Amino acid sequence: MTPARGDHEARRTEVSEAVWRVLSTRGFEGLTLRAVAAEMGATTGLLTHYFPSKKALVAHALDVLDRRSLARPRRLAPADGGPPPPEGLARLRAALLDVLPLDAPGRAGNRIWVGSWDVALADPELSEAHAARYARARGLLTECVETARRLGELPAGPPAAEVAAAAQAFVLGLVVQALFAPAEFPARRQTELLDAYLAQLTAGAGAGGRAGGVAGEGAGAGASSA
Amino acid sequence: MTPARGDHEARRTEVSEAVWRVLSTRGFEGLTLRAVAAEMGATTGLLTHYFPSKKALVAHALDVLDRRSLARPRRLAPADGGPPPPEGLARLRAALLDVLPLDAPGRAGNRIWVGSWDVALADPELSEAHAARYARARGLLTECVETARRLGELPAGPPAAEVAAAAQAFVLGLVVQALFAPAEFPARRQTELLDAYLAQLTAGAGAGGRAGGVAGEGAGAGASSA
Repeated sequence: MTPARGDHEARRTEVSEAVWRVLSTRGFEGLTLRAVAAEMGATTGLLTHYFPSKKALVAHALDVLDRRSLARPRRLAPADGGPPPPEGLARLRAALLDVLPLDAPGRAGNRIWVGSWDVALADPELSEAHAARYARARGLLTECVETARRLGELPAGPPAAEVAAAAQAFVLGLVVQALFAPAEFPARRQTELLDAYLAQLTAGAGAGGRAGGVAGEGAGAGASSA
Repeated sequence: MTPARGDHEARRTEVSEAVWRVLSTRGFEGLTLRAVAAEMGATTGLLTHYFPSKKALVAHALDVLDRRSLARPRRLAPADGGPPPPEGLARLRAALLDVLPLDAPGRAGNRIWVGSWDVALADPELSEAHAARYARARGLLTECVETARRLGELPAGPPAAEVAAAAQAFVLGLVVQALFAPAEFPARRQTELLDAYLAQLTAGAGAGGRAGGVAGEGAGAGASSA
């Protein structure tokens, strides 16, 4: 790597961090070339060298978000090389927990992600990318539901894709609630709400709902009536 | 009303409609004094007479959204003076259906509402107002759950407030999915997903789940295993 290229990479990293800081506090609405330049102590002119427009800056911000999301330890694919969770219900739970703002990085990432919806809905290209991302996630959840049914962890019922769509709706909405009322929705309550949701799904399965064993605290609430 | 005042009111209405049109297509990110002025065929100078800052414009936009939401016919409080739905489960269903983007006005309102989250999360005052709004809605849903339990429509289980929070999470997330993938989430599928959700809640209630009678099509899916 030539020094020039190294400089360029270092500067892009610096820009990415400034973008992240601006988004965390001011959201996409406050993401301007001027704000990022000020955050870096640089000129707007220098920044336009990297990002000629606000749209380029927004696209970059979403890339940064993607990379940061992949970098933080996740239950579904632990960064420490630990074993991924088993298939079926446990995997479904891990995938859904990964979405929630349970810790500071999760809150920051979700705040930015939720903030991106306004910009994305106004731009067909970004909107399509967001929709594709959610569709992929639903595909993964659908597989988990199908496997959980084969394992007897979830009862037969509506199409697996519908169970997956409902579960995705549930966690997306929980993210929004937790962002607006973090004191009312601490990590423990989010987890309990998710486990109660999963317990409802498992009600009626072979063993009378195995989520209790998987979910730990809170599981069983809601399934007690089955 | 003096002519001057009438002019002022007429102008404010004109501004509100321009704000609505800008928000519907470009979101809060695209809501600038310049964009609204252009939409009205007016000068930015004239507009700053009404709204000295972007923040004032955003606050006004949220007011417009509130008024429009109240104005459109809603199941929970029909504008045509028809009878409100009965208490309990039917009322819970009506309140949740009212949130979903089931028609064009519902889509426009939700697109703008979801778009407001980025701006609101960056502003403590707006954020608090949003949180208070959601807390009020949860309070209403909690009452519905309590009544439904008294009526034997919902089984005993976790605290009613938790059932309400979960139901709110579910519809909020469904709104987001439907906005990004309207073709995949037409009104019928949204309604079916909600009814399947309610059927899960009613599983185990006295009559084996009364939601079937309330919810019509799609209800019963998910409860069949109870």
